[in-house]
Amino acid sequence: MIVVMNHGASKEDMEAVIKKLENTGFQVHLSQGVERTIIGAIGDKTRLGSLALEAMPGVEKVVPILAPFKLASRNFKEEDTVVRVGNIEIGGSAIHVMAGPCAVESKDQLMEAAFRVKEAGATILRGGAFKPRTSPYSFQGLEEKGLEILAEAREATGLYIVTEVMDSRTLPLVARYADILQIGARNMQNFFLLRDVAAAGKPVLLKRGPSATIEEWLMAAEYIISGGNQQVILCERGIRSFETYTRNTLDLTAVPVLKYLTHLPVVVDPSHAIGKWRFVQPMARAAVAAGADGLLVEVHPNPAEALCDGPQSLTPENFRRLMEELRQVGKIMNRTLPDAH
Amino acid sequence: MIVVMNHGASKEDMEAVIKKLENTGFQVHLSQGVERTIIGAIGDKTRLGSLALEAMPGVEKVVPILAPFKLASRNFKEEDTVVRVGNIEIGGSAIHVMAGPCAVESKDQLMEAAFRVKEAGATILRGGAFKPRTSPYSFQGLEEKGLEILAEAREATGLYIVTEVMDSRTLPLVARYADILQIGARNMQNFFLLRDVAAAGKPVLLKRGPSATIEEWLMAAEYIISGGNQQVILCERGIRSFETYTRNTLDLTAVPVLKYLTHLPVVVDPSHAIGKWRFVQPMARAAVAAGADGLLVEVHPNPAEALCDGPQSLTPENFRRLMEELRQVGKIMNRTLPDAH
Amino acid sequence: MIVVMNHGASKEDMEAVIKKLENTGFQVHLSQGVERTIIGAIGDKTRLGSLALEAMPGVEKVVPILAPFKLASRNFKEEDTVVRVGNIEIGGSAIHVMAGPCAVESKDQLMEAAFRVKEAGATILRGGAFKPRTSPYSFQGLEEKGLEILAEAREATGLYIVTEVMDSRTLPLVARYADILQIGARNMQNFFLLRDVAAAGKPVLLKRGPSATIEEWLMAAEYIISGGNQQVILCERGIRSFETYTRNTLDLTAVPVLKYLTHLPVVVDPSHAIGKWRFVQPMARAAVAAGADGLLVEVHPNPAEALCDGPQSLTPENFRRLMEELRQVGKIMNRTLPDAH
Amino acid sequence: MIVVMNHGASKEDMEAVIKKLENTGFQVHLSQGVERTIIGAIGDKTRLGSLALEAMPGVEKVVPILAPFKLASRNFKEEDTVVRVGNIEIGGSAIHVMAGPCAVESKDQLMEAAFRVKEAGATILRGGAFKPRTSPYSFQGLEEKGLEILAEAREATGLYIVTEVMDSRTLPLVARYADILQIGARNMQNFFLLRDVAAAGKPVLLKRGPSATIEEWLMAAEYIISGGNQQVILCERGIRSFETYTRNTLDLTAVPVLKYLTHLPVVVDPSHAIGKWRFVQPMARAAVAAGADGLLVEVHPNPAEALCDGPQSLTPENFRRLMEELRQVGKIMNRTLPDAH
Repeated sequence: MIVVMNHGASKEDMEAVIKKLENTGFQVHLSQGVERTIIGAIGDKTRLGSLALEAMPGVEKVVPILAPFKLASRNFKEEDTVVRVGNIEIGGSAIHVMAGPCAVESKDQLMEAAFRVKEAGATILRGGAFKPRTSPYSFQGLEEKGLEILAEAREATGLYIVTEVMDSRTLPLVARYADILQIGARNMQNFFLLRDVAAAGKPVLLKRGPSATIEEWLMAAEYIISGGNQQVILCERGIRSFETYTRNTLDLTAVPVLKYLTHLPVVVDPSHAIGKWRFVQPMARAAVAAGADGLLVEVHPNPAEALCDGPQSLTPENFRRLMEELRQVGKIMNRTLPDAH
Repeated sequence: MIVVMNHGASKEDMEAVIKKLENTGFQVHLSQGVERTIIGAIGDKTRLGSLALEAMPGVEKVVPILAPFKLASRNFKEEDTVVRVGNIEIGGSAIHVMAGPCAVESKDQLMEAAFRVKEAGATILRGGAFKPRTSPYSFQGLEEKGLEILAEAREATGLYIVTEVMDSRTLPLVARYADILQIGARNMQNFFLLRDVAAAGKPVLLKRGPSATIEEWLMAAEYIISGGNQQVILCERGIRSFETYTRNTLDLTAVPVLKYLTHLPVVVDPSHAIGKWRFVQPMARAAVAAGADGLLVEVHPNPAEALCDGPQSLTPENFRRLMEELRQVGKIMNRTLPDAH
Repeated sequence: MIVVMNHGASKEDMEAVIKKLENTGFQVHLSQGVERTIIGAIGDKTRLGSLALEAMPGVEKVVPILAPFKLASRNFKEEDTVVRVGNIEIGGSAIHVMAGPCAVESKDQLMEAAFRVKEAGATILRGGAFKPRTSPYSFQGLEEKGLEILAEAREATGLYIVTEVMDSRTLPLVARYADILQIGARNMQNFFLLRDVAAAGKPVLLKRGPSATIEEWLMAAEYIISGGNQQVILCERGIRSFETYTRNTLDLTAVPVLKYLTHLPVVVDPSHAIGKWRFVQPMARAAVAAGADGLLVEVHPNPAEALCDGPQSLTPENFRRLMEELRQVGKIMNRTLPDAH
Repeated sequence: MIVVMNHGASKEDMEAVIKKLENTGFQVHLSQGVERTIIGAIGDKTRLGSLALEAMPGVEKVVPILAPFKLASRNFKEEDTVVRVGNIEIGGSAIHVMAGPCAVESKDQLMEAAFRVKEAGATILRGGAFKPRTSPYSFQGLEEKGLEILAEAREATGLYIVTEVMDSRTLPLVARYADILQIGARNMQNFFLLRDVAAAGKPVLLKRGPSATIEEWLMAAEYIISGGNQQVILCERGIRSFETYTRNTLDLTAVPVLKYLTHLPVVVDPSHAIGKWRFVQPMARAAVAAGADGLLVEVHPNPAEALCDGPQSLTPENFRRLMEELRQVGKIMNRTLPDAH
């Protein structure tokens, strides 16, 4: 960390900063520039949070040098983390696709979706039982009934289940049914929930918040890992920008950036990012070409009748075609995708 | 709502859309343009959420005409909502300032802060007992002990207490101590929590999410109001933009926009938005000049020793000066601020 | 276009709006909703710009229904535009890669870059003679001398030249040397320059402005096309978001969106968008997988000595490897890339 | 400047960086941390631009310590710059309001606007003769005829004229008529134009680009100052964010930030930022309360008939009321505004 003193900082100001740093266990070295004095501090970065150096007299700004995450970083653990879900591995040599409807609406709907995505080669079934909706007047999910239907679909198809957990109170219930606990974008910084899913001991799919930087996202992962659970899958799902043609702006560059900064597996959800089914197929291809370890794709037996996010859902037939294309792109990346049945 | 059909939409496509709209209770009228056919639909906007019109064949896009919020809108209720907290009124003729430290750190710290802000004219004491922190390694708050100290400060000074509630599980605990329940920016779309604070029956300070549009923010308020609690205070605290010199970009224009769109009172938190104490004073003045009903200001007896957000905290002395200036700006707005003691 | 009247709009207000629309040649139809009256207007969208309907009494807002661009739209011209540069076609079945250094620094540097990118399979040489630089103290380009060197490299290698034109005054000079005139991101809405390059009659590479929506970008293309020049190539080069790890946020979804909205060819510049060479390779692959018609890639014989944008430049060796990968991705897309030599 | 070496950087990597820095005239000092080696460099920051350190082997990132602007900075020149226009001073004790229509449409329109804003207390008349318009089909301004009308209005009212110059070619023409040359937001980084207005020797009103950081904006000012013209007025006019209710997001915090970072005067244009006249009045008050040295306000004799930006234009009557309010806010700030006549 670098502390930049301002133009008129006094000797006393400098000494106060140095004393505070040394008392917190940092090694300090001073550098007098033409315009400014700069204080460098070396030590345990996790202690920095509690210092209010920028509030000290004479301090112009504090410039962090190292990323604030530790357990999540590639420096801390060089080899890729592989998250095991039953007999599959996310972050290994295979690319896994998690597909299914936005929300569980009925047994018939989910069963059809499950069989169709399974046939096409998906290994994990997605579907929300608890749905975070912008409007209180929108369909909010079937709740426990939805979880039961998901479990039936798992039984019938052999697919694993990823589903969203919206708060700590319903976590034990959701954890009874889910194979992967999904933390939604709006909950990426719900720190109580992060600590609780850490304790739940199941793989976690951590979606990026719509206005979260990559660094903040990795700090959210750090909450889970430092809570004792290293089975974290990061999911890029679009960030908020000024562009309104798509629902969000898919930040696909985050994929190679994350592969460089962290050992955690990275998957991409083009459906939510874009909001229009028409563009899901090319962007799913692009995600694999960028190095993603997997995908989340919305598939609905009948998008026009969906209670949630129909406009961004693929038909089973379009999904099948997408999977065929992904197998080809995967080959170039030396990754395999499960065969269609 | 307007449904725009695409260039090549067939007669059957159009009829399917019309049928779906009519079945949901909308009145429909058709308009054939040179390039496109457009279908207008009139009816209860709260039912729109469940239609997946954009997923229907031949539909290019759906353009909503009316804002999706209802109970929160000025059309629904024309006169200003005044939120009563003990013997003060937020949204009435007086401007109320909520001041205090970011976090409750100790009894001494909070008591000193409380007495100093009270002397300067604040009527509400702010201070976090549960703190949402980006890093798991940062100080996370004194929790219940912090709430007890807040209650002691209320007892000693007569100030009312606003403090953040971070999740539903700790809500009953926080609600026992707080006069106003604060929903933090990161929780603005924590819908379970919104429903629960609605049921708690206490005034709610609803901070704007850092990437929330004004419309989404009012939809979050709609969750609380439709849950039976109309005592909602909106708090602008900066949005995320590309500018990095300040922590966030204070969207002060949201103040007059909200006064136009909704009947709810609006307050501004310049401290969190800006992140640097130096600029809090001018922006607090600007907030009152823009029409804000109140302010949230961080004040710490010794910012350089703060465990949280020291760089954006005013000293008690600076806060006193700020209050004097605000009284003058308030006068121009025909609003009063409580006197200093 | 839809005009939404506000709650309390009078009959006179409505009649004034209708009269104004009819006088401008629009067909008008009225629709009385429960809460609002809505006026629909059908007619030539290019005349809308001159109406100030939102300033009329009683008008709440104006909602455009159709995109404002016309000549650039896929509705106006269904088949893909193919831009011919010498004996190559951009937007045809082949994918063309434009490669070279950020700036022309010397004859040696450019010649080496040119021969190396040519060997790897590039068909167009990029290199700036006039450089827009954030700082007045940075290297601003060799100007005419740089253009001469570019022409020598063309002579020696057979590569075509794309280079930036920064203003109308130097346009005749640049047009004498360039095969494709590049409009830089900062000039996307330099409307005088757009009109002048339209008149210059050479292919134009139009970079997206860092804060331009897709719609505004297509309106910039509309300036060129309506000025009589349809040889426009759109170049996605990243938009400005809150994320700071990369220089900009590459909006790759713009590629399939543009292929849907317009007939113009679309290329991607991952180097400028990302700003770090390490991530250029995966994102170039992703761009081709998303459907791009070509790429702009920065290649420098010795990035560490570059006078401009070294950190995002590939070495010739890395570029050769990238081209090999792109050939494979291209195959999946049924597109060819020129062979290496 | 701080160069952070990466984890596995070799001794040779480090030595190469040090050598390059020393050769460019920097003083270097090394600091070995637990995880990283860090190289500090002290010297003339204006030379940094030409180094490509981040492209050197072993370099993780380069962290600038000082702002890149020099002549524009408060450190370089402590006292406020006052820009003289005829017998008025911008940046002095008086607040000056520049008012008038978006575009000069006719002699009648401009004359009426001029007399009305003069009566209300404006000292400078704004009005575009050359108009940058998103659509090629919109009114593009009266060009030289418009400039002549502006000059007539100056003659008749004694108001000074601020008007936009769109490119270098028309600069001599515009400079013949204008008292202040306005650089529009889209041209903030049109570097040729910046150099040319520097040479023109007239006061320059430099609007902030919609996606420009404060630092980039000051670098644009640095182009003008380093070109020999210190008469630069900065104009905040909104930045692009995800919020769509207003045209742009007025970043009012930029006002006190700029007063801290630079000696140049700062004015605010709420009309363009917001795009809706209804919210101009509160935000103009807020701008003065935040410390602005002046305002740009759109006023049109008949907004509903305006050829450009009618929805954001005040009527003369509303403008008169606004000026009365501003006089009161100004008083609190110890600033005067010219009286109404």
